[in-house]
Amino acid sequence: MRIEIICTGDEVLTGKITNTNFSYMAQKLEDVGLSVYWGTTVGDDRDALLEAFRLASARADAVIVNGGLGPTVDDLSQEIAAQAAGVELVLHEEWLERMKDFFSKRARTMPPNNVKQAMLPSTAEMLDNPIGTACGFALDIGKARFFFTPGVPRELRRMLEEQVIPRILARSGAPSSIYLKRFHSYGLGESHVDQLLAGVETLDPEGGIKLGFRAHYPQLETKLTVRGSDRAQIDAKLAPAIAEVRRRLGNFIIAEDDQTLEGEVLAALRAQGSTLTVVETFTAGQISARIAHLPGAETVFRHGTVARHLDNLFGIAVPSALDQATTEAVVQAAREKTGATHALAVLIELDDGADRIDFGGAIWIGIATAERVEFRRSRILGGREWVRLGAVELGLDCLRRFLLGLPVVERIDFEKS
Amino acid sequence: MRIEIICTGDEVLTGKITNTNFSYMAQKLEDVGLSVYWGTTVGDDRDALLEAFRLASARADAVIVNGGLGPTVDDLSQEIAAQAAGVELVLHEEWLERMKDFFSKRARTMPPNNVKQAMLPSTAEMLDNPIGTACGFALDIGKARFFFTPGVPRELRRMLEEQVIPRILARSGAPSSIYLKRFHSYGLGESHVDQLLAGVETLDPEGGIKLGFRAHYPQLETKLTVRGSDRAQIDAKLAPAIAEVRRRLGNFIIAEDDQTLEGEVLAALRAQGSTLTVVETFTAGQISARIAHLPGAETVFRHGTVARHLDNLFGIAVPSALDQATTEAVVQAAREKTGATHALAVLIELDDGADRIDFGGAIWIGIATAERVEFRRSRILGGREWVRLGAVELGLDCLRRFLLGLPVVERIDFEKS
Repeated sequence: MRIEIICTGDEVLTGKITNTNFSYMAQKLEDVGLSVYWGTTVGDDRDALLEAFRLASARADAVIVNGGLGPTVDDLSQEIAAQAAGVELVLHEEWLERMKDFFSKRARTMPPNNVKQAMLPSTAEMLDNPIGTACGFALDIGKARFFFTPGVPRELRRMLEEQVIPRILARSGAPSSIYLKRFHSYGLGESHVDQLLAGVETLDPEGGIKLGFRAHYPQLETKLTVRGSDRAQIDAKLAPAIAEVRRRLGNFIIAEDDQTLEGEVLAALRAQGSTLTVVETFTAGQISARIAHLPGAETVFRHGTVARHLDNLFGIAVPSALDQATTEAVVQAAREKTGATHALAVLIELDDGADRIDFGGAIWIGIATAERVEFRRSRILGGREWVRLGAVELGLDCLRRFLLGLPVVERIDFEKS
Repeated sequence: MRIEIICTGDEVLTGKITNTNFSYMAQKLEDVGLSVYWGTTVGDDRDALLEAFRLASARADAVIVNGGLGPTVDDLSQEIAAQAAGVELVLHEEWLERMKDFFSKRARTMPPNNVKQAMLPSTAEMLDNPIGTACGFALDIGKARFFFTPGVPRELRRMLEEQVIPRILARSGAPSSIYLKRFHSYGLGESHVDQLLAGVETLDPEGGIKLGFRAHYPQLETKLTVRGSDRAQIDAKLAPAIAEVRRRLGNFIIAEDDQTLEGEVLAALRAQGSTLTVVETFTAGQISARIAHLPGAETVFRHGTVARHLDNLFGIAVPSALDQATTEAVVQAAREKTGATHALAVLIELDDGADRIDFGGAIWIGIATAERVEFRRSRILGGREWVRLGAVELGLDCLRRFLLGLPVVERIDFEKS
């Protein structure tokens, strides 16, 4: 099955906006076992659009067109789709009613130029957009089925998932049910995880399990794509594979599916009725920023301190070279001064000199409750920004491990010495 | 002049990485008055690459190809370029020496498969890559001149600027000298700035000045692209236009060219030998994170406090509804407790209820030195994230205004009531 994507619009073509819709669509298709063969970007230009539709219709089985469904004169997708298919534009009464309803619910009158959004090629099948006025549609041009989608990301995402992908899957003849299971890990590199998970795909002798990765330092996402004839068959295949991934990656799994590391930390604190204070130096507020903005953090996140001078933290004289005793004293003082049940301190000593690829830093981490103090020291190389990103993640992961009763100290692939 | 861009590589085509190189190239071309007509994305696939080169060579005058110049077997750009041009690959001795030198300077031996990177089509002109082993090159395929560039962003950026754009400009017959002047503003919307700057383009009766915008909330970038036969002519055209933009946008210009708002704040503090403490609530550390990580902030940024509970900030009882007196007391106490010369407090009262497009927040800002306290209250609507972004920018901008002796309170387009 040959799939193409055509992205339209001057804002994308001129680079005014970065085309995140393309990578989003390509990933979503990959997640269900489909691959994009060709991508095209053209502006709001009749000749270029017509030529792009013509070329894709000759090469592809399915084409997703993104953008150009708006109410203004430079939105040309319906018009050029009709021209390429050799049919007329006709008023789609149902969509017109939907739009009038959309506006009246918001106590507004529909502007006359929105009528344009209900003009569809006569052979088009409407694709529902429950959250906007841009109506999607599908039609045949040449040998290919074209799917026209809105440029607004959240409208595209919903239509892609609910309308477009199910139709493409049905045409591809692939098993109609597909499920994507995701694991987020921290501390193991992609090739290391790939080794650790060798053989997981063959847990399904029929080859219905596909393993994939997406690295975005410092985290790694491991994906299991499972195909089957129905959900029961998928669950039967998935259960042993999930158990095996959890067993092999163990404590390094920080979250699954839509969960996040900071979300897991917050959930564990909330479940215990605990509160948190954070002390950080070179990470400059990024640890606090990961947790404090989350819904539900109001009652948990008590206080964050960002200090660049270590000489006097909470009344503690910090020596020029950090040590375990000082780190522990700082985190205990932070907890006591702010009245939180838990305190996390992430203190960093950077190398001297200019930024470079082997520039590094020592990361001193302390975690304290009234009863217990845990300590970890780590060293990360890779330039200032790399050290900063690594320290944020390591600090949050140590706190997660502490809260879940896992060992706080466990060697990770990114640390040196 | 018709320009196309071809982006290659499975990682881009599958959406594993977002294609920021495309928007970067398109913007850089726009900045010098050139426009991209067509964009193509294909994977590491011989048939697709050859077809993409063939189609572009028939349509375009100039084609920039990005990616596929690496040493591994899936890097195919040189091979397919030679095939499309109907010529042989030959060893480029000069580049081979450059690569050996590159490795020996890093005390490493060149792996044998890197020789592949010195194999260029026989008719190719080498394009220098001073910071990597991927050699760029230019050659004719059909009627178009093709420019092959590396996929690594920093290598692409340098080659595009130093090698590719000058060659395309020379072919386009445009005046050879072009200069881009940028102004960053905060507080005025794009259409407002567009109105304020009406007529600036006509300051050059020959039409050598082009005005453009790039909005990335909360900031707006205003761009003056100036063409001329040489730098002296450009400077003569540019001087009155710059003066006019500065006069009309006035205090709303937060920085120019490569400067940033936080950089200007830091520079002003450093120039005065001052130090800074920051207190923030709902912005959750993002104000500290903008300043504290900057090179040179070590000696300036003294302390950041992130609090979600306003009930007790620095020993001050905060009433359930904020007021000016409390905001001023908090910022003065923060300054005194941390010993900084300057303190900035950004305290936020959010609306109740679920996030929605008209969800808003009141932003209470205080700035204090030993001698002076300034206060500003503002209200921003647009959802939780919009309020957060706006509050970070407003707080930093008020501090900039304070430090530069400008009025801290001046109405902005984004605030309500």
